[in-house]
Amino acid sequence: MKTKVAIIGSGPAGLLLGQLLHNQGIDNVIVENQSREHVLGRIRAGVLEQSTVDTLRQAKLGPRMDQEGLVHHGFEICFDNQSRRIPFSELTGGKIMMVYGQTEVTKDLMEARDAAGAATFYQAEQVQPHDFYSDNPRVTFIHDGERVALECDYIAGCDGFHGVCRQSVPKEAVTVYEHAYPFGWLGLLADTPPLSKEVIYNHHKDGFVLCSMRSHTRSRYYIQVPIDEDIKQWSADRFWERLKVMLPDDKAERLVTGPPLEMSIAPLRSFVAEPMRFGRLFLAGDAAHIVPPTGAKGLNLAAGDARALFEGLAAFYDKGTTELLDNYSQSSLQRVWQAERFSWWMTTLFHRLSDSAFELKAKLAEIDYLTSSRAGMTTVAENFVGLD
Amino acid sequence: MKTKVAIIGSGPAGLLLGQLLHNQGIDNVIVENQSREHVLGRIRAGVLEQSTVDTLRQAKLGPRMDQEGLVHHGFEICFDNQSRRIPFSELTGGKIMMVYGQTEVTKDLMEARDAAGAATFYQAEQVQPHDFYSDNPRVTFIHDGERVALECDYIAGCDGFHGVCRQSVPKEAVTVYEHAYPFGWLGLLADTPPLSKEVIYNHHKDGFVLCSMRSHTRSRYYIQVPIDEDIKQWSADRFWERLKVMLPDDKAERLVTGPPLEMSIAPLRSFVAEPMRFGRLFLAGDAAHIVPPTGAKGLNLAAGDARALFEGLAAFYDKGTTELLDNYSQSSLQRVWQAERFSWWMTTLFHRLSDSAFELKAKLAEIDYLTSSRAGMTTVAENFVGLD
Repeated sequence: MKTKVAIIGSGPAGLLLGQLLHNQGIDNVIVENQSREHVLGRIRAGVLEQSTVDTLRQAKLGPRMDQEGLVHHGFEICFDNQSRRIPFSELTGGKIMMVYGQTEVTKDLMEARDAAGAATFYQAEQVQPHDFYSDNPRVTFIHDGERVALECDYIAGCDGFHGVCRQSVPKEAVTVYEHAYPFGWLGLLADTPPLSKEVIYNHHKDGFVLCSMRSHTRSRYYIQVPIDEDIKQWSADRFWERLKVMLPDDKAERLVTGPPLEMSIAPLRSFVAEPMRFGRLFLAGDAAHIVPPTGAKGLNLAAGDARALFEGLAAFYDKGTTELLDNYSQSSLQRVWQAERFSWWMTTLFHRLSDSAFELKAKLAEIDYLTSSRAGMTTVAENFVGLD
Repeated sequence: MKTKVAIIGSGPAGLLLGQLLHNQGIDNVIVENQSREHVLGRIRAGVLEQSTVDTLRQAKLGPRMDQEGLVHHGFEICFDNQSRRIPFSELTGGKIMMVYGQTEVTKDLMEARDAAGAATFYQAEQVQPHDFYSDNPRVTFIHDGERVALECDYIAGCDGFHGVCRQSVPKEAVTVYEHAYPFGWLGLLADTPPLSKEVIYNHHKDGFVLCSMRSHTRSRYYIQVPIDEDIKQWSADRFWERLKVMLPDDKAERLVTGPPLEMSIAPLRSFVAEPMRFGRLFLAGDAAHIVPPTGAKGLNLAAGDARALFEGLAAFYDKGTTELLDNYSQSSLQRVWQAERFSWWMTTLFHRLSDSAFELKAKLAEIDYLTSSRAGMTTVAENFVGLD
């Protein structure tokens, strides 16, 4: 079997790359080791930057997102029992954020791929990229009991942090940068009206709280907990009570509680593997980098990688130039490190890291500054909506 | 003996407060436990913010500063073997920084005080503030073998971190916030032309370097060293060699070395004592707070305190209102915490804190951002020249 681009992984990065390539008439095949239902069943965040929104529209995936997504022009920062707003659209020349779940993005992408009739192998076993340092790479896997060898020009490794692609690269060819955080996020999803129309980042002396939403009727809340916290110790009632204590009084009063659809604890991690290209194998999305969810950058970085890789492949197939492909790793890593830096910084600023009273006061002064100086607000805003 | 304001300590805070009060016709006495020569012999930094420059001019201390001081409109940030400039005047509506040593400021203040004929007791022993929670505070000390009791309306505690004033307050009345850094600054002063006309903040993977100056012919360099570093291990030659390795290549080539006038290691500390008022005792300058020198805030905070305390005392003596005095602690602490926060942040960003490769890359991305985004540069600039 032959194709131009073999894409391993059908998360947002792989599906979006596939769709962009398809729209450009560039043949591609997606190989995914999970089932379609499993991929769709993953609960993930979904705050899309302007550039991600633009890319999805460019890929002709705009209509449902534009109809159902929630357009945001600002978010709130709460600290010290007060609230301030970062009007990020006003501060960035009109850029917006779109709340539209990753599950919905994935669903739209899968449906577009179905309509396009592009080949996708779900539940592929023993997926393995080969010979990507040669001019004749291939991907082998077992599908429906049959061994498949997929010959291609390029392989896109979009198979996530635990995927086979990065692991197939010689260890000495990869440099890994990692940071672990001594806390996790205890999350609760509920069909209750969101606390506010806008996302709330809440600094409390005991830790971080995020008040987010999936729709006008579905809320998503997170509370900082120790990394070794036992989820069994947390009833929904305990969660709601704790949340109220950590929010400013006027917010706590307005909080609508309800039975949880889901409760779980997620660890936080920063991770970058360099470079993002190994011969004819290109990594994109979580396969190359992980950010803590604080800055809402994960999905947007994956979309940015898919866009950059698409542009490189399109330039190669349309014009025969490899300049963009040759530059893919370096230019992507520059974008990735800015997002890594912002996510790490925001995580560090809003979470409780130590018992230091000095640190607490210095952080309160920092949040005060960042929410009162126009320059300070602009730095938060332009990083949040995504740097150019 | 009687006065209106008894000032303990003849550093910049005490002398400046005394001069401002004198100019307003408010009688004051300064009591200092060191000799005049000792106070003048202290080697300190001296980068004055616009507001400090304005205050010194207001106190009629402008002429020599304006003649001999070096007006700066920007500084350089070096990292990753490259240099970028923060044009802080352009970014802050024209605010400047003035390089004019603390020793010179102190000298000007002492001479002005001499000319005014205001009372100053140097080498006062056993200085002690009393009864500052009553309406009749006083300061006692021994001078030239005689016991002096100085009755006053108010006491200004300008006697530095180790001074008697803060230590005379009941422990339970003070909240202390502290942060220690696991490194110090190895400094070298030399009569060599400065590396650049502007101050250079240099991030190197192994640590921080500051290239500063006292004049067109006198340079001051600092290198980050471990907190327990032995100064005996450092010859001037070793210092200059190390400095060259840590600077960008084009800067290292231009470095002019020479015999040291002074070499020493200074620890870095963040410290705030709250409140800054205890009855009729007001703390100002290092007596209430210490910053690491990274942000050049120490002398400027002291001048800000002196200005604020003067304004409060002037309002009381001129109009009989105590509103400003009553607000002194709270409003000063707001200013202090912004400077503490900036100094801590800048220290943390530019120094090597750990062996983490992730942290190094994230910091390089942060410095890259802060020196390329206009909003980022403006946050650095407006904090550096002093927030309003």
